[in-house]
Amino acid sequence: MRHHDIAVIPGDGIGTEVMPEALRVLEAVGARHGIRFGLRHFDWSCETYKRTGRMMPEDGIDQLRDHDAILLGAVGAPGVPDHVSLWGLLIPIRREFDQYVNLRPVRLLPGITPPLRDVGPGDIDFWVVRENTEGEYSQLGGRQAEGTPSEMVLQVAAFTRRGTDRILRYAFDFARRLGRSHVTSATKSNGIFHSMPYWDERFRAIAAEYPGIEADQYHIDILCARFVMSPQRFDVVVGSNLFGDILSDLGPGVTGTIAVAPSGNINPEREHPSMFEPVHGSAPDIMGKGIANPIGQIWSAAMMLDHLGEEQAAADVMRAIETVLGSGDAPLTPDLGGTAATSDLGAAIASAI
Amino acid sequence: MRHHDIAVIPGDGIGTEVMPEALRVLEAVGARHGIRFGLRHFDWSCETYKRTGRMMPEDGIDQLRDHDAILLGAVGAPGVPDHVSLWGLLIPIRREFDQYVNLRPVRLLPGITPPLRDVGPGDIDFWVVRENTEGEYSQLGGRQAEGTPSEMVLQVAAFTRRGTDRILRYAFDFARRLGRSHVTSATKSNGIFHSMPYWDERFRAIAAEYPGIEADQYHIDILCARFVMSPQRFDVVVGSNLFGDILSDLGPGVTGTIAVAPSGNINPEREHPSMFEPVHGSAPDIMGKGIANPIGQIWSAAMMLDHLGEEQAAADVMRAIETVLGSGDAPLTPDLGGTAATSDLGAAIASAI
Ligand SMILES: CC(C)[C@H](C(=O)O)[C@@H](O)C(=O)O
Ligand SMILES: CC(C)[C@H](C(=O)O)[C@@H](O)C(=O)O
Repeated sequence: MRHHDIAVIPGDGIGTEVMPEALRVLEAVGARHGIRFGLRHFDWSCETYKRTGRMMPEDGIDQLRDHDAILLGAVGAPGVPDHVSLWGLLIPIRREFDQYVNLRPVRLLPGITPPLRDVGPGDIDFWVVRENTEGEYSQLGGRQAEGTPSEMVLQVAAFTRRGTDRILRYAFDFARRLGRSHVTSATKSNGIFHSMPYWDERFRAIAAEYPGIEADQYHIDILCARFVMSPQRFDVVVGSNLFGDILSDLGPGVTGTIAVAPSGNINPEREHPSMFEPVHGSAPDIMGKGIANPIGQIWSAAMMLDHLGEEQAAADVMRAIETVLGSGDAPLTPDLGGTAATSDLGAAIASAI
Repeated sequence: MRHHDIAVIPGDGIGTEVMPEALRVLEAVGARHGIRFGLRHFDWSCETYKRTGRMMPEDGIDQLRDHDAILLGAVGAPGVPDHVSLWGLLIPIRREFDQYVNLRPVRLLPGITPPLRDVGPGDIDFWVVRENTEGEYSQLGGRQAEGTPSEMVLQVAAFTRRGTDRILRYAFDFARRLGRSHVTSATKSNGIFHSMPYWDERFRAIAAEYPGIEADQYHIDILCARFVMSPQRFDVVVGSNLFGDILSDLGPGVTGTIAVAPSGNINPEREHPSMFEPVHGSAPDIMGKGIANPIGQIWSAAMMLDHLGEEQAAADVMRAIETVLGSGDAPLTPDLGGTAATSDLGAAIASAI
């Protein structure tokens, strides 16, 4: 029996509702493939913050360190400012474990009606590769003259050669591994004066190392428009922390699958655990109702399996998701137009395995 | 006869092809309403840069100063880096003339098939109010250790109390003037540590001055997704320089009208001339073919008329655009699925006046 130690952090809001469904699916697929999961649960959340003043204990990162992967639900709750909750849990994990790739598929699944006309399953199928440790997400900066009419806030984005090159190279390597021919860079070098011309310069340099792969770039404004006008044409899209964030919510929006989209925060060198989480947040508006769509969490677990080398198990989970969604009589949650509960949809997927 | 002095800068690429159509329409509507336009043409462009090393003469700003408004085509050409061409012409004009509002309608026009299913003319009709003088578009920052593995680029975004408050207040005033009930703020305070929490703080403070108007906010990632999933629900959307830029290309993408979208760079206090330009760029890929869609430029001229107090003339131009597009046998340019030339569509609109 193969064994993987997983740190499980359900977090806040619907994170705690969708996580059990992912664990149920992991159990099913583990039984089938002879995989045992050693699960350790962490209740770190905005509740923890309200109780202790910290989102996670001081040695939180060390507690996670020895796991093979981390499965996260969602972070954030009303009453705790987002920049407190996220910078106290999610973002430190991404950084301390050098999870410098945020990998997000954009795929039109069967049984889901996208907001676009004239597209069907298979038409949209690409990946967003997002830089995940530096760039616009930065604590550099500050405020002066607080409370006066001269008040001013500076926010500094930092782009290093190391950080820029490694994400660009990952994007090209990833395209090659998938057998995809085309890497698109998100830029804004016409408006963002220092960092984006630099990003372009490094993109050109790295692209030259991959002569077999077509490289093109778009400014983020028109790229967003193209995600809507011609999402069929992308293979791998690489962007900075902020641009990748925007594109990897917009992509699922275009495919009608925000609640379904997964992500991997990956340390490709495997020096540290990688973390897998749905793209959706804690969704306080629907929490407690048991109607959250668990597919984002389940698909994230599939990405985790793939990362752990369990490709067969990962493929089985994806097949189960697609079988259930495509069956025509799946127990769909309200976001997909149905009336089923989180656990109904989770159970259907687990039993399709 | 009323008289307005207009500085005309066709610029680069298709800018030079669509501008004559806007001038033709201005002449037609001027004849009808007794308005005379004093037009002064400026050939500033990337050609100028290649010849002189400058996008505009050293006293360029002063040459523009005495005009009632500026009508701009597009800036940018292959061989001239965008951050050179834009920071040498477009962006200095926005800043020197304190055009701190970039105003952009997102409207589904008759006769245009949007990429979204289930929407028709009238369903999508909102405005993006973009901060236009500070924020992420900044020359603060730089590079160190150039060419070495330790290379690093810093990019500083600056948000002042003055700059933030005035754009937020403009958004609420504008909503009130239009009789719209709802202002949405684009933020990213969960990821952008200093500037966006500050933006939110000021948004809450200014919103409190407008108790009759509903104020809400979304992170830019999910807001982009919502532009695709439920564009019907917006009235006025306010964003920073970068977020407003992204949203005001995505909005036209969603309505299928990128080539049609106009913008105003507005100095609301009228201490300096305002500038009107289409959202599309110089489009080197189709330049010289005479097939560019002139409606973005013509609609920009309509926004200019409105700003100059010529509301009747502005409304006539809009009516002419909608009549031609809705007629069913308009001479449409290729981007709209037709085979007509720029000048055919321009002539049709001029004669519909
Ligand atoms: C050309 C570029 C600098 C410009 C901007 O980003 O402001 C354009 O995209 C716009 O929206 O007017
Ligand atoms: C919650 C937030 C900080 C986070 C991000 O912007 O990285 C989220 O939007 C995501 O995409 O994972």
